Amino acid sequence: MKCLRNLSDGGLHVAEIRVIPLKFRNKVLPGDNWLSKIISCLNDLQLSLMDGDVLVISAKVVSIAEGLAVKLSSIQPTNKARELAKLYSMDPHFTQLVLDEADFVVGGVKGALLTVKRGIFIANAGVDLSNAPPGCAVPWPRDPDGSAFKAWQTLKNEYCCSSLGVILSDSRVQPLRLGTTGVAIATCGFQPVIDLRGRKDLFNRPLKIKQLALADLLASAAILAMGEASELTPAALIRGVQITPVDGCTSRQTFISPKECLFSSLYPSFLEEASSCKVHLPGKWP
Amino acid sequence: MKCLRNLSDGGLHVAEIRVIPLKFRNKVLPGDNWLSKIISCLNDLQLSLMDGDVLVISAKVVSIAEGLAVKLSSIQPTNKARELAKLYSMDPHFTQLVLDEADFVVGGVKGALLTVKRGIFIANAGVDLSNAPPGCAVPWPRDPDGSAFKAWQTLKNEYCCSSLGVILSDSRVQPLRLGTTGVAIATCGFQPVIDLRGRKDLFNRPLKIKQLALADLLASAAILAMGEASELTPAALIRGVQITPVDGCTSRQTFISPKECLFSSLYPSFLEEASSCKVHLPGKWP
Repeated sequence: MKCLRNLSDGGLHVAEIRVIPLKFRNKVLPGDNWLSKIISCLNDLQLSLMDGDVLVISAKVVSIAEGLAVKLSSIQPTNKARELAKLYSMDPHFTQLVLDEADFVVGGVKGALLTVKRGIFIANAGVDLSNAPPGCAVPWPRDPDGSAFKAWQTLKNEYCCSSLGVILSDSRVQPLRLGTTGVAIATCGFQPVIDLRGRKDLFNRPLKIKQLALADLLASAAILAMGEASELTPAALIRGVQITPVDGCTSRQTFISPKECLFSSLYPSFLEEASSCKVHLPGKWP
Repeated sequence: MKCLRNLSDGGLHVAEIRVIPLKFRNKVLPGDNWLSKIISCLNDLQLSLMDGDVLVISAKVVSIAEGLAVKLSSIQPTNKARELAKLYSMDPHFTQLVLDEADFVVGGVKGALLTVKRGIFIANAGVDLSNAPPGCAVPWPRDPDGSAFKAWQTLKNEYCCSSLGVILSDSRVQPLRLGTTGVAIATCGFQPVIDLRGRKDLFNRPLKIKQLALADLLASAAILAMGEASELTPAALIRGVQITPVDGCTSRQTFISPKECLFSSLYPSFLEEASSCKVHLPGKWP
């Protein structure tokens, strides 16, 4: 038993990864410039963005700043929304907003619908009540790729970075697991999936099917620093990860065609069309 | 445009999270003491474990050390295995091992079966060919909870920690997403899911359904440092995350009952039994 409780880690020379929470000075309100807020936050921390950094920002903050919060009382529920709301013990106004936002509704449990939006399985089409202005719900940004691209361009310019990754993130649940992890709903400036196929394993054999969902891993790591309640920390800077720079948006690379998706035997065939399009489809109710 | 390329981050005083890769000196072989290897690795880095640290270790390394790698040529495939192997373009010997290891087989795509093991949706029941000894495949450890518990007890004692988290991790795919993220197949010493329900959001309203899959988030963050090819880095130390200490194994807390699982309308009803048991069931083929 060594009990080296106070062993210094001054000798640490490995390439470690740092996840730095970006705590805002105050709440984001409609009309706010969320990019300026991030820059202020970095200034407060005396931090400059460096080549290879990845900035993860909660999609919700972008939506609120872009004025997308919806007053629930302003929504008129359809019969379909009332029916589903009753079935799943939900508010009919909120349910209507979810139907408007979803590309497909696939099922549900008490309090939430399982939907597909932007080719992603997500609860309630990403519409969220937590941390939304009073009486409001907040959907995903109208154009997640556009918002991520704007952030990427602005921050690259501001900090003279030659490579920078930007992720708009949300949280999502996993089949048969309790609790939420992170998902990248838009990515810009880097390859969001690392293809390891062909690289050698420890025994010098080529890997066959290994691909890493880098953007989702980064979105999950960021949640560890961001929190989900009242922490006022809707963004995180991740430093020390090897990224492969790409010029522009890369969200499409995170999708998989249903033919290759391991879970495809579970979900309805109409999703094939949705997923293979790899684009945001207009709201549909099968 | 500021171009403060070299702005020092010496002023950084936020509680950041560090993900430190633990690179082994050499390959893990059958019969190796994997815990000694982790301690050697920490010594090499002049690092001591501290209260609140979380150690994430690849389940595969534990399996190899425990002598669980299986020579594929020693396996006699059944007709069922041959049938599935043909259907999904897989090796019949490997397919038989997957059937032996799986609690349920739910579907498949070219090269992989979707299975449930230990209440977790996982490709090929967690049996893996990459980084396995030549001609072999590696299943999950026989008793993941027991292995995690042993690590937790030994390391807590070695470093005089009053709180320490241990995770045995694997990678898994997500429905409709390309690439793998992390999953905690066994957890020990801390609450693996953080229940935020009742905490206040930014507008002082209680959160209703928010729970964080902390262990899976940590397993994902660790992958960023560990790599999946020949990096010889099958473990990572995560420092700076708030954990709630628990005495002993906590893997069961990561499961959800199918009644509450958002994806339950997608999967067959026989899984209800598997998941509500929340234990490793003997291999079954529905």
